[in-house]
Amino acid sequence: MTRESQRQAPAASQPALNIQFLLTGTELMVGDIVDTNSVMLAQSLKDQGAELTRKVTLGDDFKGIVAEIEHMSLQADVLIINGGLGPTEDDLTAEAIAQVIGQPLEENSEALIHLEAWCKKRGFQLEGANRKQVVLPKGISLVANRMGSAVGFSAHHNNCLIICTPGVPSELKVMWAEEILPLLKSQLPIIDKVKTIKFHVFGIGESAIQNLFDRQLANWPKEIEVGYRAASPLVELKFTTRSEQAELLLPQWQAKVEQLLGAHILRFLGDWAVEEKIKGSVKGIIKDSIKGLTEGPEQPASVAKCLVELLARNKQTMTAAESCTGGLIASNITRIPGSSQVFEAGYVTYSNRIKSQLLNVKEQTLLDHGAVSESVVIEMAQGALAASSADWAVAVSGIAGPDGGSEEKPLGTVWLCWGKAGHLKTKCLVYPSTRINFQRFIANVGLDLIRREILEAKDEPSYFSRNAK
Amino acid sequence: MTRESQRQAPAASQPALNIQFLLTGTELMVGDIVDTNSVMLAQSLKDQGAELTRKVTLGDDFKGIVAEIEHMSLQADVLIINGGLGPTEDDLTAEAIAQVIGQPLEENSEALIHLEAWCKKRGFQLEGANRKQVVLPKGISLVANRMGSAVGFSAHHNNCLIICTPGVPSELKVMWAEEILPLLKSQLPIIDKVKTIKFHVFGIGESAIQNLFDRQLANWPKEIEVGYRAASPLVELKFTTRSEQAELLLPQWQAKVEQLLGAHILRFLGDWAVEEKIKGSVKGIIKDSIKGLTEGPEQPASVAKCLVELLARNKQTMTAAESCTGGLIASNITRIPGSSQVFEAGYVTYSNRIKSQLLNVKEQTLLDHGAVSESVVIEMAQGALAASSADWAVAVSGIAGPDGGSEEKPLGTVWLCWGKAGHLKTKCLVYPSTRINFQRFIANVGLDLIRREILEAKDEPSYFSRNAK
Repeated sequence: MTRESQRQAPAASQPALNIQFLLTGTELMVGDIVDTNSVMLAQSLKDQGAELTRKVTLGDDFKGIVAEIEHMSLQADVLIINGGLGPTEDDLTAEAIAQVIGQPLEENSEALIHLEAWCKKRGFQLEGANRKQVVLPKGISLVANRMGSAVGFSAHHNNCLIICTPGVPSELKVMWAEEILPLLKSQLPIIDKVKTIKFHVFGIGESAIQNLFDRQLANWPKEIEVGYRAASPLVELKFTTRSEQAELLLPQWQAKVEQLLGAHILRFLGDWAVEEKIKGSVKGIIKDSIKGLTEGPEQPASVAKCLVELLARNKQTMTAAESCTGGLIASNITRIPGSSQVFEAGYVTYSNRIKSQLLNVKEQTLLDHGAVSESVVIEMAQGALAASSADWAVAVSGIAGPDGGSEEKPLGTVWLCWGKAGHLKTKCLVYPSTRINFQRFIANVGLDLIRREILEAKDEPSYFSRNAK
Repeated sequence: MTRESQRQAPAASQPALNIQFLLTGTELMVGDIVDTNSVMLAQSLKDQGAELTRKVTLGDDFKGIVAEIEHMSLQADVLIINGGLGPTEDDLTAEAIAQVIGQPLEENSEALIHLEAWCKKRGFQLEGANRKQVVLPKGISLVANRMGSAVGFSAHHNNCLIICTPGVPSELKVMWAEEILPLLKSQLPIIDKVKTIKFHVFGIGESAIQNLFDRQLANWPKEIEVGYRAASPLVELKFTTRSEQAELLLPQWQAKVEQLLGAHILRFLGDWAVEEKIKGSVKGIIKDSIKGLTEGPEQPASVAKCLVELLARNKQTMTAAESCTGGLIASNITRIPGSSQVFEAGYVTYSNRIKSQLLNVKEQTLLDHGAVSESVVIEMAQGALAASSADWAVAVSGIAGPDGGSEEKPLGTVWLCWGKAGHLKTKCLVYPSTRINFQRFIANVGLDLIRREILEAKDEPSYFSRNAK
């Protein structure tokens, strides 16, 4: 797991709002409920050029919560408290705020009206237990919650605006967008215009990228922040500028990065420079003609996705003959919607017998060289091409571990063969790791090698030298 | 995601250790990296009868980090700091600790030895940037990190034991189990004797399990705490007792749960009651004879793991003929070390043409019924059995989406066929979901059905009724 590395931009002309977040609940601590709320808020603030500076999670401990609110309100300009507005005995927020601001609790008539309407609309009876939700500190201001039964509320303390919000993500999301963010925006300083460009990179790690930048792009402008995010097995590279002047620098420095990283950069449909940069057999973006290729915003970047797009654009197909990766190459491909246009057959030939039977790998070859050998993967690839009639093939045979290594062929040794009929290439790599990491990485290498062939990439992938036999 | 339901045990006789957790990193705040580390620690502490009382996340702000460490060390008995031990300029932990404890930074010779050995073993050169990892405050004690390049370290401040740990989850997990927890245990107060029993369950969801318990086991003893943890696609069910008397109740209530949940419970080698409970063709544990079947403590529970163990024990093999799951069944199996004993061939027949060519599915059958039909999956399974000579087969054909659904066969429709030659069974399910969730769930269903056959399970899986066509 790697850190986001940022070359700091010059400070904004006004001090940023200090926004902090407090979550309460033992179930959050032990992960029975996953905290997505703080992440949603932090991302939203970041898009506004603001940031969440601190996030605290506490168990259900009343005294601890009161002390924490007091402490945070001394530092923060805005304190968002999430959760604890419900009707059960574990819901402590209203009581804690009452103690912090030194006000009695009372039944809030507006909150009661909202709750009554909510119950009526759904055909519930308003029971005694639920009424606890409308018992709030005196003197607070309500924050509308149109998606839920419990209103939010806010109060001032120690020059901090405290906003108490519901724990349910769908309720918070709407309250944040419709009520809280507009309020904060009116109070946020004038934020510089933020622009972010992202690249997805495969086959070279973050430290290696950093070293390359340090050596070859030593005069990097500090107005362009560089960030790294691990999205294993990819690295996401992010460039951020915070002013219109800085933004003007982006194109030339992006070009330098592309020159430097070459085909390590994965390009997808819709990338800003795809038309200009893709060489060789790719003829340009035919986005609309690639049916079903995207599945909404959540389709993550992957080598497989990139490859499927390229194959579809070229109206070509591929096949995979897998030993040690055991189906993962096929699975990575078929995860992508629309992959049926470019993939028909996958062969998981996990034993020598089946390599021969299914792909016509000669028994003599297996006897002479062993399953993990150049000759065997060549025959596997040839067999897969013949059997499937695909345009491209990749074959993989190696030692995933934890057992099976020897002195001659240690753990992590793998032979790959890839290409078209009559134009096959081979490579031996060594990637000693856990079994699952080996399988994931090598499956992606197999896909990456076909991708680079299609692109007629001139540069060698970094893993060729890093993981050379 | 639901709350952990606990019937509270009586308070421990001594005040508990105040254990707190500090994470640093802007990428954590905005969710670019998901914090699983604190959850792992909190759960582990909970199993020991201790708890994480407070968790703070900060951005990459040096002053803020120093202030936070100071503040937390005043309250906590143990402060675990996670992350910030790497070689980049964002890794601030060593420097922050140095400032807090008022010691200079120096190159730590033991840490350097570890780093050099680490690099040498992997064939790296130790570059300048990496050496920053061994620059640590004077006077700290090292904490071994055998899974990573950066050693951990600890220091005392304000009567608090501060332990600095690596951010990478796999590294932290081992350091926690092997170095930190033993240290803490020697310092933890005498905790009521905690005993935890876990079950891994597939094919029935948490709410359904809870409902079953409420209806059929209504007089559940409050001394046995019931906990649920999502470990998709499994559910982990935990029973915890906190005294020797309560522990005596466990066997009878475990038996009731097993009776109730039947074959939804996955059993693995080493399970306390495996010998007694596995019916039918399974003859008992032959742990040592199953070569390479475990890969240390990290091998997670899965349907595939369970099935591979069963097949190995029976000296049987299986094959998979996959359409919509596209290689994921094969991949799930081959992820398990030792799977080569039980798996030789996987067929990813993603097009109709290849279904016919590779598995002898009749073209007429495809024309008459379509690929997603009972007849086709039967022929796929028969073809796979014949081609591979395996004992067991599973065949799957369905509509993973997002496209491809129709009124007659909506999105999520899938036919499965499983069993032995001459004894094949079929089922049609509907599981409308995202493509990837569909593939993951149905791949596991395919494995689960073979598992249940081997066990000669009498009860039907919950998904048969829940996801009936």
